[in-house]
Amino acid sequence: MGTNRLEAFSDGVIAILITIMVLEMKPPQGDGLAALAPVAPVFLSYVLSFVYLAIYWNNHHHMLHTTRRVSGGVLWANLHLLFWLSLIPFVTGWMGRNHFSATPTAMYGVVLFMAANAYSILQWTIIASQGEDSILKDALGGDWKGKGSILLYLIAIGSAFYAEWIADAIYVGVALMWLIPDRRIELALERRKTND
Amino acid sequence: MGTNRLEAFSDGVIAILITIMVLEMKPPQGDGLAALAPVAPVFLSYVLSFVYLAIYWNNHHHMLHTTRRVSGGVLWANLHLLFWLSLIPFVTGWMGRNHFSATPTAMYGVVLFMAANAYSILQWTIIASQGEDSILKDALGGDWKGKGSILLYLIAIGSAFYAEWIADAIYVGVALMWLIPDRRIELALERRKTND
Amino acid sequence: MGTNRLEAFSDGVIAILITIMVLEMKPPQGDGLAALAPVAPVFLSYVLSFVYLAIYWNNHHHMLHTTRRVSGGVLWANLHLLFWLSLIPFVTGWMGRNHFSATPTAMYGVVLFMAANAYSILQWTIIASQGEDSILKDALGGDWKGKGSILLYLIAIGSAFYAEWIADAIYVGVALMWLIPDRRIELALERRKTND
Amino acid sequence: MGTNRLEAFSDGVIAILITIMVLEMKPPQGDGLAALAPVAPVFLSYVLSFVYLAIYWNNHHHMLHTTRRVSGGVLWANLHLLFWLSLIPFVTGWMGRNHFSATPTAMYGVVLFMAANAYSILQWTIIASQGEDSILKDALGGDWKGKGSILLYLIAIGSAFYAEWIADAIYVGVALMWLIPDRRIELALERRKTND
Repeated sequence: MGTNRLEAFSDGVIAILITIMVLEMKPPQGDGLAALAPVAPVFLSYVLSFVYLAIYWNNHHHMLHTTRRVSGGVLWANLHLLFWLSLIPFVTGWMGRNHFSATPTAMYGVVLFMAANAYSILQWTIIASQGEDSILKDALGGDWKGKGSILLYLIAIGSAFYAEWIADAIYVGVALMWLIPDRRIELALERRKTND
Repeated sequence: MGTNRLEAFSDGVIAILITIMVLEMKPPQGDGLAALAPVAPVFLSYVLSFVYLAIYWNNHHHMLHTTRRVSGGVLWANLHLLFWLSLIPFVTGWMGRNHFSATPTAMYGVVLFMAANAYSILQWTIIASQGEDSILKDALGGDWKGKGSILLYLIAIGSAFYAEWIADAIYVGVALMWLIPDRRIELALERRKTND
Repeated sequence: MGTNRLEAFSDGVIAILITIMVLEMKPPQGDGLAALAPVAPVFLSYVLSFVYLAIYWNNHHHMLHTTRRVSGGVLWANLHLLFWLSLIPFVTGWMGRNHFSATPTAMYGVVLFMAANAYSILQWTIIASQGEDSILKDALGGDWKGKGSILLYLIAIGSAFYAEWIADAIYVGVALMWLIPDRRIELALERRKTND
Repeated sequence: MGTNRLEAFSDGVIAILITIMVLEMKPPQGDGLAALAPVAPVFLSYVLSFVYLAIYWNNHHHMLHTTRRVSGGVLWANLHLLFWLSLIPFVTGWMGRNHFSATPTAMYGVVLFMAANAYSILQWTIIASQGEDSILKDALGGDWKGKGSILLYLIAIGSAFYAEWIADAIYVGVALMWLIPDRRIELALERRKTND
């Protein structure tokens, strides 16, 4: 079975998630700039989550370029990833409404942590279905970036109860780390072509 | 007429349904873990419905692999299925808010029952449009899994008024039964290829 | 320019419209069957609008099968149709909440009337872009069904202020008229093939 | 990497944005025409934003016809554009609820200004990725229409604090300017074909 419909469905879900978070930002009743002030933390949490979902979409897009056939296991690993991503609007709203206080900030990290694990599981499921000659395995290598992110989320969850700004700084830092274009998959695809 | 646009539209509707249920989970006002407690049943009902919609998407995806042309009857049978699926967020929200009490739990089963019937109707409409040589008919055989699910939903609806946990256990059980990869369609496609 | 992206965008908008209407049906707070009673009129108006949007999607799907190239005029005529369709959830909610009272019922007809006109404009824009040899023109003939529907909506709008049930009966009647499979476009496509 | 999935994702996001604005228009509780009066400004702001999003979708559609390959930079420039477009429902709701008063009207202009800049950045990113022989660069020329719109938004933001109607008139005027079909890209594509 081809990857078309898997991509279309994932695109649909991520597109909806990225836009329904905006519904959480209620237009204020007053009409001065001061009326916007209470919306500011909700806006900041929206920007952060927009960037995270955009990174996931981007990486998902690249990952599926290495694969042509989709097994039942891959379908479910993908749905598992979408499940954790679907909780991002909820924790974003909770964190924004409570001005980045300890528990919501930690819970935001828990969802990022689970989503990152789900992404890893999806990667290994695809690699397993590709067999020995997996391009994706080639591209990932030790996947230090993925493993590092998961470790950093754990540190953020713990530090949220000590000082929230550390957790927030880690979330921003991990996002920036992934924003820098990642050429691992493109390089692996090129290497493969050269060898053929 | 091809299946492309039917798939795209169904994917769109299911992707939206699976994500708007998250809007039903309102981020709580408080910021402690205790504030999350009232959200717990809504969360559990969300997980259950996410899995059900994922199963429907998955099976729908496989079923359409057996067909190439779409008749007017198939279009409407598909819209009929989407109608019943579209009621899942409503009954999910109702069941979650009322902590899985009797009537909402039974009503959840009614919607699952109607959706399962709509799925059967869609199957038979496709089979009828494929004529004698239908691959889908080949794959389904007696469709004991589909018929059994419908029967189990009926039992769940009745037992909800006696003890809600029986109904909930049945909903979880049927979902697990479908989560186990179903190779009927893939096997039928392979058999067909071998015969050619 | 091809029709692919026009179809994808229209599918997206119609899929979202058909599902967000469900958000208008708020799960009731109580947990008995009696708690569902106030939701009943909202549910009925939802069913009616679901069927209307499904009919529009279905006919749109068929209409675009007759065309290959999309001009700027067609793009805007299509967006104009989507605009009127996008108001259906609003009037559906208004009519449902007010138990099909006079003004909301008439306003529902106004939106159906405008959408039907927008659909006609889209048809004629496509026909104009296809030139003399238009398959769509061939298929439509005098388009009595389209013109009749527009006239019936006008009658419904007027009669809503006299007796709401007449308007409601007309809305149901027109929907049923379109539910019966319309083979005009399929026949025109077949005729064309035979002639070639 | 091809443009397919970029188009599909952008279509999804724009389709959702254009439809969720309708959720901001709450069906009124009363059932007379008078009950619709408070909805009027929200409706007007909805129409304006619908047209703006439709124009963006339309131009995006044309722009991507000039390109075949998508670089990492283009993916992010596109997501940056989608971010600013995603704020349109928020400022639309704020402006509509406050009857087009000064600050919300100015803020609406700020979002249009940022979106227009994001669109320019996306254009230049695509041109840079196409190299010397860029069709898009050919089509845009000095891009006076794009630059003029950005300047007009700046004037509108300033004048909103002096007299709101000037800002509103500018928003409507710029929209009308873009509604008139823009044949620059089509002409450039034709010229290219003739030269080959």
